[in-house]
Amino acid sequence: MLDSESLNALAERLSPGAVLTDPDLLQSYRQDWSFDPESGTPAVVVRAADTADVQEVLRFAVDHGVPVVPRGAGTSVVGGSTAVDGAITLSLERMTAISVDRGSRTAVVEPGAATADVKAAAADAGLFYPPDPSSFEICSIGGNVATNAGGPCCAKYGVTSDYVLGMTVVLADGSAVELGGTRVKDSPGLALTKLFVGSEGTLGVITSVTLRLVPRPASPHTLVAYFPHMSDAAAAAQDIAAALSPSQLEIMDSAAIGLAEDFIRMDLDRTAGALLIARSDAGLGARGEIDTMQKTCETHGATDVFSTDDEFEGEVFDRPRHAIYEALEKVDALISDDVAVPLRRLAELTDGLAAIAERHGTTIVSCTHAADELTHPVLGYPHGDDAAAVAAAAARVEIHELAVALGGTVPTEYGIGRHKRAALAAALSPELLALNRRIKHAVDPTGILNPKVLVSALGETDGRAG
Amino acid sequence: MLDSESLNALAERLSPGAVLTDPDLLQSYRQDWSFDPESGTPAVVVRAADTADVQEVLRFAVDHGVPVVPRGAGTSVVGGSTAVDGAITLSLERMTAISVDRGSRTAVVEPGAATADVKAAAADAGLFYPPDPSSFEICSIGGNVATNAGGPCCAKYGVTSDYVLGMTVVLADGSAVELGGTRVKDSPGLALTKLFVGSEGTLGVITSVTLRLVPRPASPHTLVAYFPHMSDAAAAAQDIAAALSPSQLEIMDSAAIGLAEDFIRMDLDRTAGALLIARSDAGLGARGEIDTMQKTCETHGATDVFSTDDEFEGEVFDRPRHAIYEALEKVDALISDDVAVPLRRLAELTDGLAAIAERHGTTIVSCTHAADELTHPVLGYPHGDDAAAVAAAAARVEIHELAVALGGTVPTEYGIGRHKRAALAAALSPELLALNRRIKHAVDPTGILNPKVLVSALGETDGRAG
Repeated sequence: MLDSESLNALAERLSPGAVLTDPDLLQSYRQDWSFDPESGTPAVVVRAADTADVQEVLRFAVDHGVPVVPRGAGTSVVGGSTAVDGAITLSLERMTAISVDRGSRTAVVEPGAATADVKAAAADAGLFYPPDPSSFEICSIGGNVATNAGGPCCAKYGVTSDYVLGMTVVLADGSAVELGGTRVKDSPGLALTKLFVGSEGTLGVITSVTLRLVPRPASPHTLVAYFPHMSDAAAAAQDIAAALSPSQLEIMDSAAIGLAEDFIRMDLDRTAGALLIARSDAGLGARGEIDTMQKTCETHGATDVFSTDDEFEGEVFDRPRHAIYEALEKVDALISDDVAVPLRRLAELTDGLAAIAERHGTTIVSCTHAADELTHPVLGYPHGDDAAAVAAAAARVEIHELAVALGGTVPTEYGIGRHKRAALAAALSPELLALNRRIKHAVDPTGILNPKVLVSALGETDGRAG
Repeated sequence: MLDSESLNALAERLSPGAVLTDPDLLQSYRQDWSFDPESGTPAVVVRAADTADVQEVLRFAVDHGVPVVPRGAGTSVVGGSTAVDGAITLSLERMTAISVDRGSRTAVVEPGAATADVKAAAADAGLFYPPDPSSFEICSIGGNVATNAGGPCCAKYGVTSDYVLGMTVVLADGSAVELGGTRVKDSPGLALTKLFVGSEGTLGVITSVTLRLVPRPASPHTLVAYFPHMSDAAAAAQDIAAALSPSQLEIMDSAAIGLAEDFIRMDLDRTAGALLIARSDAGLGARGEIDTMQKTCETHGATDVFSTDDEFEGEVFDRPRHAIYEALEKVDALISDDVAVPLRRLAELTDGLAAIAERHGTTIVSCTHAADELTHPVLGYPHGDDAAAVAAAAARVEIHELAVALGGTVPTEYGIGRHKRAALAAALSPELLALNRRIKHAVDPTGILNPKVLVSALGETDGRAG
């Protein structure tokens, strides 16, 4: 337990205004976007202003044996920054500096910077920071690094890890280390930069990141294609991804098409089995790529195909994809999940989702990043309806079982957090779990860092710890 | 010490013909391409046929307290697979299987497969495995993964780590673990796949790798441009890399131009300060990219610029780059080194190389992967001339000092091995060295894996252990 005396002593060593203990303020740091009813209440929230603040907090935490939950914008949907009772929530929200160097095509950013601001700063220098999680306008870049965030652009550009060249990270003992460098070929020892990406705050607290930027691509051309059956859309996507590098290759299932049409009324074909929305940003090559995509879709039985080289019209074509989230948020509690199955099994997955939805009386629609074989089942149920919440939770378990039965996996794009630990435990062999634990223990021997997420909380034997 | 009785017992547990103890054969496994005169002689060479063989060898090694040096094709130029006296050299040369799945754009490969064969198998499926270390025709894919190999294509396509999705690795205790998965977004726990890439055989022995493949690009267009001064070439390259994604962006210094012309007589301009050789594989966009490169080069004072869309002629344009190695190998002992400096300091680096060459009577030419800020100084001196060898070694130390003085780094593309440990030790803070050691110890607690390379042999204090 942290008494007020020790907290006052901590506050004196930190930047002004860093320490929050007001109960109302603490409440606002309890949950993240997973809205976990079992979230704890932090004993204190520290809003660090710099690396030195983070070092002080971690030294203090080890001295007092108190866990630390690092927190960016709090947009985790798997409980990655859900508070722990009596612990320190260490917010990076005040550390928002962004510095772009056009000459070396790099940006040095603080973890609290909004991903949208990082993308905008790159664009101002004529460059491009690709990763585009759907929350990019509100999430923080530190959270993206901590979870190795993805997005539709990964079809062509890869995930966050592919853009992280180096970082400053504060370890559990309060030491600050510089990992990596400023170049893709820098190799100062073991590849620790990449190890810390996706470690969800369990190995250290990132206080600065060096990002690789790329030349700004041309504005995209966009294609949409309706298919009678999901299996045809998946086959078309597979051929497209083997032949071209689309900058987006998304597939909505029929439930998603219907839900979007209910919400935005843009004459979508509700009778279709799937809607493929693809893009090419290949500049002078984009027209040819779109033509090839069109032919491929038609070969696989697409009924209607439309394309545009106009950026604004392309946004309209892409609108249904965003509408499914807006539609569900408006009336329901929403769970966005993520699973991966081989593309050739995608139709079985979406058929299965429909059956699970029917069985549990839960709305389930899906959108798939086809080039990455990553499907987001999105569940909706009435706010405040406890029975429906229970049904949705049961549906989610069945979705995970289905993905595994189809030769797929569950621990994917959103990270593990608290809520995918059971899925992680099921996916790890005892030897691999042991290896994860040995690495965790080597870096954070007292286990104070984000103790309820990722592998931290997995037991030696059952892995399903609470 | 390993006696013949224990070796016989080991042989009985391994695939037929795995164990080599013939002294003449052992000799051929002493050195790698670093030709270290201080290389040891292995007590035994095991040529593993499968993962089970590797597991047996590691269990045996731990039981007997004997180090293991994993070895692929033996093409390390930094001593990554140089033998240790009395140790086991564990060769993966017999494990050469390659299996490509076009549907998921992945290849599952055994570590002994030649990188050229992996690239060919991908091409046979209409796909592309980008990494292209200059040794790709003779090196093994396992070695590429162990060193996170690069090459000219990294300008556009990134390094080996960007293509490794998963792997089977045998740990020091003989357990085999499956790391990663088959998709860029798979996240089964900590990012251990990426940690093992570049670990140079010090954390485990890789017995299978799942590689990401990409669509096959169009055949490249090629541009060459002469500049009076290196600083102009570097400035042009910097602008090109910020605006486009060339599939190659190389710069030869004046010494390299002269050496190539001596060897291949193709009327290169010996008076030039630099020769830039760039490529675009952007298909329909390639012509436009080459035009933009040409204008950029001219803006920065290029004297002569030539380009071609013919693949064969493009190979001729690229010929001087390869000629420098062939020229030196023909008459001299050759050391290919690697350092990185910011592009804006590249001219200072190449001027410094010329001064160092003059001072030590050593041939030094350089070729730079400009988009990655990675320069290969290539040193040559007469075979068997001990004084010249000493001078070249001294020159190399000065090159490293110069790179650091110019704000650059030394531990880069080739990995660390034995020969860059001093440079690594100089580049690591005490905290970062300690973190590397903690990870190493967590994974290989008895320290039997490749004990003389990378961080394994760095002392707690001086880091310059032999």
